[in-house]
Amino acid sequence: MVGGVSEPLTDTQQASWRAFIESSWALHTRLEDELRAATGLSMADYHVMVVLSEAPAHRLRMGELAGRLVFSPSRLTYQISSMVKRGLVRKQACPDDGRGQEAVLTQHGLAELVAAAPLHLKTVRDSFIDHLDDDELAVIGRVFAKIRKA
Amino acid sequence: MVGGVSEPLTDTQQASWRAFIESSWALHTRLEDELRAATGLSMADYHVMVVLSEAPAHRLRMGELAGRLVFSPSRLTYQISSMVKRGLVRKQACPDDGRGQEAVLTQHGLAELVAAAPLHLKTVRDSFIDHLDDDELAVIGRVFAKIRKA
Repeated sequence: MVGGVSEPLTDTQQASWRAFIESSWALHTRLEDELRAATGLSMADYHVMVVLSEAPAHRLRMGELAGRLVFSPSRLTYQISSMVKRGLVRKQACPDDGRGQEAVLTQHGLAELVAAAPLHLKTVRDSFIDHLDDDELAVIGRVFAKIRKA
Repeated sequence: MVGGVSEPLTDTQQASWRAFIESSWALHTRLEDELRAATGLSMADYHVMVVLSEAPAHRLRMGELAGRLVFSPSRLTYQISSMVKRGLVRKQACPDDGRGQEAVLTQHGLAELVAAAPLHLKTVRDSFIDHLDDDELAVIGRVFAKIRKA
């Protein structure tokens, strides 16, 4: 580091970075395209519904949901408004704090998630999971948990 | 596999997949947001320019560029049209085959790439590379090269 300029990547770093960024970008595009074509849902819709479906009573405070999804507050507000219009979630005041708002997965949203899951799982297996051995999966899990915290 | 239905993920597969998909999604968003805010370029613009800058005479056939970027032909056509309007690339007939078309990085495109690279490198280091050791980088490189081919 000289004068705030980052050191160039080594050849190995460069090769790993390019493999990761180009391949993960193509993978995101494929997941999004296949999910949308089959169900009309975006990956953002799907992830919101997965996270809510795992929460107690299928509901989470907006701030907590934003944190789980690594979404900015404004991006989450936009995303949830779009899902409210489609009946997938609803917003309501937090029971223990009248000022806060929660996002709640609706019955319709849960049904859409359950219907979409098998197709999405097939894409996830075909495009990613089934190509990796246990050691590779363990490294991927550890690395991306670390990156996420950073 | 029964009747075409994919087997559910094991807990370990599920944990690794979720760490990867959520974290890489947040990373793509950060890279895109920081690049756009500082330079007005999208990640797609940037990747097209990097790939062209590395090609002989800064030019590639459209089909080959699509393959390198893992873009569909229609997505690449749209992307290149947008870049032509901004003067970053131009299209011209292949010298050895009048029917084919090449994308060529312009002087302006090269200058924009050179200006954007240090900022992008800093984000890549801060958000990814500097958190990984050599072994992790090697696994990431190997895994995503494999995924890309799949």
